[in-house]
This record gives sequence, structure tokens and C-alpha cells, in this order.
Amino acid sequence: MAVVNANYLKLKAGYLFPEISRRVNHFLKDHPDAPLIRLGIGDVTEPLPAACREAMIKAVEEMGDRATFKGYGPEQGYSWLREKIAAHDFQARGCDIDASEIFISDGSKCDTGNILDIFGDSNKIAVTDPVYPVYVDTNVMAGHTGEANDRGEYAGLVYLPITAENNFTATLPSDPVDLVYLCFPNNPTGAVASREHLQAWVDYARTHRAILFFDAAYEAFITDPAIPHSIYEIPGARDCAIEFRSFSKNAGFTGTRCAFTVVPKGLKGYTPSGDAVDLWSLWQRRQSTKFNGVSYIVQRGAEAVYSPEGQTQVRQLVSLYLENARLIRDRLSKAGMAVYGGVNAPYVWVKTPNGMSSWDFFDTLLHTCYVVGTPGAGFGAAGEGYLRLSAFNSQANVIEAMARVVATLG
Amino acid sequence: MAVVNANYLKLKAGYLFPEISRRVNHFLKDHPDAPLIRLGIGDVTEPLPAACREAMIKAVEEMGDRATFKGYGPEQGYSWLREKIAAHDFQARGCDIDASEIFISDGSKCDTGNILDIFGDSNKIAVTDPVYPVYVDTNVMAGHTGEANDRGEYAGLVYLPITAENNFTATLPSDPVDLVYLCFPNNPTGAVASREHLQAWVDYARTHRAILFFDAAYEAFITDPAIPHSIYEIPGARDCAIEFRSFSKNAGFTGTRCAFTVVPKGLKGYTPSGDAVDLWSLWQRRQSTKFNGVSYIVQRGAEAVYSPEGQTQVRQLVSLYLENARLIRDRLSKAGMAVYGGVNAPYVWVKTPNGMSSWDFFDTLLHTCYVVGTPGAGFGAAGEGYLRLSAFNSQANVIEAMARVVATLG
Repeated sequence: MAVVNANYLKLKAGYLFPEISRRVNHFLKDHPDAPLIRLGIGDVTEPLPAACREAMIKAVEEMGDRATFKGYGPEQGYSWLREKIAAHDFQARGCDIDASEIFISDGSKCDTGNILDIFGDSNKIAVTDPVYPVYVDTNVMAGHTGEANDRGEYAGLVYLPITAENNFTATLPSDPVDLVYLCFPNNPTGAVASREHLQAWVDYARTHRAILFFDAAYEAFITDPAIPHSIYEIPGARDCAIEFRSFSKNAGFTGTRCAFTVVPKGLKGYTPSGDAVDLWSLWQRRQSTKFNGVSYIVQRGAEAVYSPEGQTQVRQLVSLYLENARLIRDRLSKAGMAVYGGVNAPYVWVKTPNGMSSWDFFDTLLHTCYVVGTPGAGFGAAGEGYLRLSAFNSQANVIEAMARVVATLG
Repeated sequence: MAVVNANYLKLKAGYLFPEISRRVNHFLKDHPDAPLIRLGIGDVTEPLPAACREAMIKAVEEMGDRATFKGYGPEQGYSWLREKIAAHDFQARGCDIDASEIFISDGSKCDTGNILDIFGDSNKIAVTDPVYPVYVDTNVMAGHTGEANDRGEYAGLVYLPITAENNFTATLPSDPVDLVYLCFPNNPTGAVASREHLQAWVDYARTHRAILFFDAAYEAFITDPAIPHSIYEIPGARDCAIEFRSFSKNAGFTGTRCAFTVVPKGLKGYTPSGDAVDLWSLWQRRQSTKFNGVSYIVQRGAEAVYSPEGQTQVRQLVSLYLENARLIRDRLSKAGMAVYGGVNAPYVWVKTPNGMSSWDFFDTLLHTCYVVGTPGAGFGAAGEGYLRLSAFNSQANVIEAMARVVATLG
């Protein structure tokens, strides 16, 4: 008798975004002509940079000639891409990261889930609340939790609330934890972490021999020069942190698919009896065995992000979305709403008016403004009373959406 | 203290193909000008079909226009691709498979590893010997085995020998097993399974409520019209089988990356207490949570495989490789060697001469013929005494390689 992984049965019925889709589709069935503006899911809307497209077309053409055809590539990615990433994203910012420590993948969602493969089942795991749901769900699937309670909190996980009251920075856990998920600039709150806050986490992790999973998928949106882009800007981080990065949000690769994970050589985990084990070697083995590398064509597209033209085009994309975030903040705060984030991040975290629940506010915006947001409660219990608005849309759509929302509130 | 997955420490030092790379690179360091011909790793060599390239260039261009730009797609793949697969690969062969049962992925290696996520840890698992090493290694990593013995066999796995003596078809296990890996046309032996043999497996699986993992990555190479291409050609298979398919070997996508898995709706696994659980829903949840879909550009390339031009071009590619396989069989058997496979598969399984060990024969071919094969022992204990030659190369290279091998044997 084939037995299933019964941990899946603990998962709450709907992953957040499918539930939003369901409500939106239901609404559209009754109002097929409603001029919906989607500021919900964090999906980009603007064209892929020309530099990336040109590089991919060239790569497709190479595939047509036996002499330049590419079959299986290295599972960890081509060295020409890994070297550019190491130089531009890390060494240029003073981070001691080598190309061999970069593992190219097809997405940060995959990587943040798959990374659990190389860790044991006995670790104490901390997540912020609210949190990107994938961190929690992948731990549930891996059997690292008990059942969920009425607030959607799974037994066994350590939830670290981040709210306006603590300026969206978690208090370090009083009891030791072994694996910690940190996402800065933060999804969903749009908050950033100061150098001091990150140093405190690095010191904590080194003291407790914990590993930080640092998700920096939104680092391109940092505008404040004092804010670190990488955890490796913090002294000691090579000894305690794995970093996740993506081309999805800077270069618009959500439908093109390329990302990477950084595992420093010398970073250690431990056997239950306390023997040190090299994590780079485990991840290398995991990727060699369970992954076949990213499409050559897509890797060439990602490489073009680092060309002078690519850099200019990516900056233009990021600026466009950041101006949208500024508009959202500006319009809503002028209308008397409390807004957070949106300065160093493409997300604005909006306090719901009059203590409204986040799903009620979501439904109100959908039905009266034809605007789709993401209810904060979908990201965790402490997200209740907030709603996330994404800056990923055209400026015209953002202006129109904000006009409708402000009119409703007024 | 962050604890690692100690199951990784049970893995034998080198995955087969990295070990081959190591030996080849060592040889090339001493003989940099040796005219090496690689018939080792199963990687294609011929250009990508023009239909696929044209479709991908068009897709890249769509990415440059806001109106046709594609962000996140469905994690399970676009319906236009899933529908073509269902129609061409299954319904046209009389298989009752719907588009919603097709899950597009970036590789069969990933899928055959990831599928274990939805199963529990108490299943009894059967593999053939020799076997595609990924089936074994992913089970070791998941903690489904004990340690390996001197022959490289892991405690807890059920090994089913396939050799010339049993015509490369495994005897059904006498004790019940819960998960069974079957690969036909077989990697590495090139053998195929008759309808009767597959029916016996389906009957076995239904009797024992087992699940068959049917890897059909090489189905395009079947020339014998009596041989099933899909497990779903066998009555009852919808109740007991998951099938893996790939565009790697038919359309040359090893560097482009696209594959798919078929999970029939209604296929059941069980909780430890015997309650039935829908496997389609678990896999759907797994993919939604831990995967973000395949690049839009690549999916358009895969779709083009099903156009009339694409079908013609794929048939030409397959014919080219099958002619190579025929040449390998012909030359070696004329030279008095025992050869198997290579008629319905791109692999020829060669008995080593004079009882030579497979790594010794590998080294001999490398050092005296400058030809790279794959030692049978790398695929399992029962692969000792064999060597795999792959037909993936140009015809000229195959002819030259065989001339060198025959000269050495003579």
C-alpha cells in the first residue's frame, strides 16, 4: 500500500493567491466588464529589458547550429553567469562571495522550499508574522510542524510578529532557534532592515549555530544607501547565512524564470551528535541529483542584466515601479490612511480603515473600486488589519486605482 | 544548532557522471589533443528543431510588448501546451488522459526526485538493477534507505536484477512493494517492455495498492509497433501509475529544459490508517507551493514540437540517433561482441569482452580508442560486466568511434 506524506493534510485549504484568484474570478463572472486593476499578486507587468531579449534571441539562434548547440549545462549554472553575479551583486558591494558559491536556479520560490532538503527534521524554525506563505507551507509539507490553530499558526513554528508597533523588525527569539527566515526588503510589509538589525541576527545565529535564510528577492528596490542589499555585507554572515536572489522583480523575469542561491563555502550545519558538515557540498549534491540547471537561453537572458544596457534598463524598470509605490503612499496617506513600506520596496502595507478585517477590506476594494489587493491576514495572524498593495502595474493604472480608492474612502 | 539531513552522508562519494567527468578530464590533461568521441552521458548533440526555435524567438519578442508580456504563468503549465500533449501523446494512442492531468516541468530528473515529496517514509521501494542512479539517490536523500554495502546496494531498497539472462525484464517481487520505478525504453540497457510485461506490473500494483513510477523519457525511440509508448495504454494503469515524459531526448531539449508528469485524477495513495488520498491534489499542491512553472519562452518551444513541422523535425532527429544505434550494434556484433538494446532506444548495452570489469573496459576505451562510454557498474551491481554506449552524436563520429573500438578488439 503506497502511503502518502500525511503532512500535506495539515495544510490549510487554500494557498493565499489561489484563494484571491477564486474570489476575483467569482466577481468577474458577475461583472465581466468591470475595469479591474490588479495590485494583488507581486507580478511584474512591464516588458522584459531589450538587452535580455536580444541575448535570448541570440541564444536561440545558437541552438540551431551544431557547433554552438548547448545540451546539458552545469547543474549549478554556467560560470559566465555565476561570475558576473559574484562580481556585480556581491564583490562590488564589498561582499566576499565567489562565483563557485552561486547556484543558478529557476526561482526563489523553488529554492526557499528546496533548501529544506539538506536540513534535518529536528530544527526549531522561526518565521516572521506576517510572512511569505511558502516558508511556512514548505515546512508543513516537510513535517516540521504540528497542526494549525484557528489563527492559522502551526504548532512547533516560532512566529516573530512584525507590526507597526515594533517598526516591522522582529525581536530576537528568547529561546534558541536553528533556522530563521528573513526577507528584506520585506514581503509583504515593504519594510527594510538596518545594518544594526541584521548584525544582531548574524550575532544571534553565530552564537546559537543557527542558519539564516536571507531572502533578498527585492534588493533592487532599496533606495536608502544605508540599507544593506545582501546579508554578506554584515561581518560574520558567511558563517551563518544562505541568501536567495531572483531576476523576477528587478528584470521582470517572473514568466522567464531565473534566480540564484548563495551558499558560502565553509558554512556549516551539524549532525545530531554535533559533527560539522559542509552545507555547500550538500547543496551541490542536492542540485546535481535533483535539478538539471536552468535553460541555456534563459541564463543568457539573465547574463544580459549585467551588461551596461541591461543595467540601465533594469534601473528604469525599478524606478517605474518605485514611482508607483510613491504614488500609492502619497494618495492614501493624503486620504488619511496609515501606510508603510513602498520606499525601498515595491509593496505598500496599508492599515485597514476603521479596524476593518483584511479580507473585508479586500472584498470592499474588489467590489466597489475594482481594485485587487492582498489581504494581510493571508500572510499570517499578525497581518490581520492590513492589506498589501503592489506597485507592479502601469503608472496610469496605479493613478486610476488610487483615485477610485480615495473616492470610496472620502 | 542547525542540524543537517544526515541521510546525505550515506550517499556514495561520486554520482556516476561526475566520476566519468573526472576521469575524462584527467585523461585530457595528459592528452590535450586526443580526438575524443563522447558516447557516454545521454546528451543530445544535434541542433534544436527549427519549429521550436522559431516559436521561442516569437515568444521572446512577445515579452517585449506590454500587451503580450507574460509574467507568472500557471505553475502546472499553460493549457495550450497541456492540451496538445494530452491529445498527441495520449489520446491519439487511445489513452484516457486529460490536459488537467499533465503537469509541465523543467525536467524528468527533477520530477522523478520531487515526486517523493508527496509520499510517506514507510513505503517499500523497488528499483531495477541496473537503474538510473537518480531514483536511488533521491530515496537515499529522503531517508528511505539504510547504508550502502560494498556492492553499492542500499539497505531497505528492493533491487530487481535485469540482465541478459532474464531478457532485461524484472521478475515481479515476491514480497509486496509500495512504490516501483520502471523505465521503458530502459536507461541504461535499451530494453523495452512488452504489453504483457507491463500488464503484469499494473495487475501487481492494483493488487498491492502500489504506485508505479513509469519513466517514458525515451518513448520516441520505440520502433516496434507492438511496444506501448505509455503505461496508460495498459488497462488499469490510471489506478496505479504516474508517468514521466521529457522533451530532452526527442526534441533535443537537454539544454532548453522542458518535461512533464502525468498524474491521473482519481489515483489514490493512503494514509497509514488506510484512508484514500487523492494524489493529483497533493501533486498540484506540491507544484503550486514549490515550483513556479517553466519559462513561457520554453513552453512555446515545446508546443512547437506538436506542429506538423515540429513533428517532422523531431522524427528526423530520432531517426538520426536510431541509425547511430543501429551502426553501433552492427559494428560491434560483427566484431563478435554481445550487444543489447539500441533498436527501440538510443542506448546500446554492451557486454564487456573476456569478463573485463566495466570500469576497466571504460578506461580501455578512453585510453586506447579515445571513446567515452558509461560503465555499467555505475548503474548498479547487476550492471557490472556491461558498458553503455549512447547513440547521441553525429553519424560520422559514431562510425569513427566504432572503427577505433573494432580495431582495438581485433
